[in-house]
Amino acid sequence: MKVGVFDSGIGGLTVVKSLLEHQFFEEIIYFGDTARVPYGVKDKNTIIRYAIEAVEFFKNFELDLIVVACNTVSAYALPEMRESADCPVVGVIESGALAAQNALPSKDANILIIATKATVNSKSYENELHSLGFNNLQAKATSLFVPLVEEEIYEGEILEAAFKLYFDDMTPPDALILGCTHFPLIAPALQNYFGESCQLIHSGDAIAQYLEKEFDFTERFSEPQMKFFASENPEALRKIAKKWLKL
Amino acid sequence: MKVGVFDSGIGGLTVVKSLLEHQFFEEIIYFGDTARVPYGVKDKNTIIRYAIEAVEFFKNFELDLIVVACNTVSAYALPEMRESADCPVVGVIESGALAAQNALPSKDANILIIATKATVNSKSYENELHSLGFNNLQAKATSLFVPLVEEEIYEGEILEAAFKLYFDDMTPPDALILGCTHFPLIAPALQNYFGESCQLIHSGDAIAQYLEKEFDFTERFSEPQMKFFASENPEALRKIAKKWLKL
Repeated sequence: MKVGVFDSGIGGLTVVKSLLEHQFFEEIIYFGDTARVPYGVKDKNTIIRYAIEAVEFFKNFELDLIVVACNTVSAYALPEMRESADCPVVGVIESGALAAQNALPSKDANILIIATKATVNSKSYENELHSLGFNNLQAKATSLFVPLVEEEIYEGEILEAAFKLYFDDMTPPDALILGCTHFPLIAPALQNYFGESCQLIHSGDAIAQYLEKEFDFTERFSEPQMKFFASENPEALRKIAKKWLKL
Repeated sequence: MKVGVFDSGIGGLTVVKSLLEHQFFEEIIYFGDTARVPYGVKDKNTIIRYAIEAVEFFKNFELDLIVVACNTVSAYALPEMRESADCPVVGVIESGALAAQNALPSKDANILIIATKATVNSKSYENELHSLGFNNLQAKATSLFVPLVEEEIYEGEILEAAFKLYFDDMTPPDALILGCTHFPLIAPALQNYFGESCQLIHSGDAIAQYLEKEFDFTERFSEPQMKFFASENPEALRKIAKKWLKL
């Protein structure tokens, strides 16, 4: 199988990492819209327009599947992407909600969703989790986390101050959904802040769990072909991919 | 005179505010490229492409002058904008350097430039200041300041931690160039951090000083016509403009 992975920028590489570990695909085509990142502050119509352009781009490759790594796109543009695409399109929100269900023994568990402003406003995670029977939900737009990660700040004083700003008035959650591909990079600091009993839900692991269940992967591919595209500075993306994915 | 003010987003309204105070223009057309903000992390060719599109947009209005409020665009795209435009195009970097000169009694003064990554990498402020005889220069890309301002964080613990991160190893400057239109909003906190003896140079004041010197404003207009355009969510821009500019 040949998969296309779409993200607004480089964060989706954390999802590619999980796909590689599971050896699902013979070929992985990554497209990061680095010229127009971040999507998380844009409005719905703009996000949909950009997402459809990504589907058009992927039509060059005769794909079997498109994985939308970006939470914001998954929240707003899946129906439109599915309409435009010639293959199935899966997002990270449904799979994230299912992963939370798998990780939590009780429907009374308190789940905190952290994401961009756009994803939080969409209420997509809440809708999915409600439909699975969870009602004890909190959501917070943690807009500073993306720029902090992009400054390579994964711990320390500023991050602690940001946690205080965002989480001081929150009920300590049983599970924390990392609703943005950048957030796995601050997962250790978040785990430390919320304590070991809090389950962290990661989009990459969630989508891998989901694909394993939904698709019939008869073969595994330990050395898939990989191609990386970006709307700006593809060289920088390829360099980061090499480093993160240890290619 | 009819002026077009171009910015990557809403930050350029701080420049419009200065233009309004000086009552230079009969009509002010603002264009914020809110669908593609921020420019400060993008590469040169992308910035030039977007800037030329803005010039094309302004051709609808038969302008006498274009003011580029965005430091990043001023750093990278002025020659190309001038080539495309039918009227003069002025940026905030030359005027910022001249304002620093006016504010400082000695060429030995230490000047610290804070700006986006793209503006700092361009070395545009350094080049202008060198040509004015200043050689005691420091520059720092303070990438977190834009998202902090957009979170409406103008003081407090996170901002102090960010100041410490960026400025701990800097020589205390005699002047601080606010090389991004967002930064005037944290000017009081910066003034407090660097002390009252540090001169803060603000793009809006600097460009007003510059225009006053370069152009012959025979008339003044206390109630100019104003039009606000944005590539995304123009309503939000108009609302912020009303609030910031007290329209």
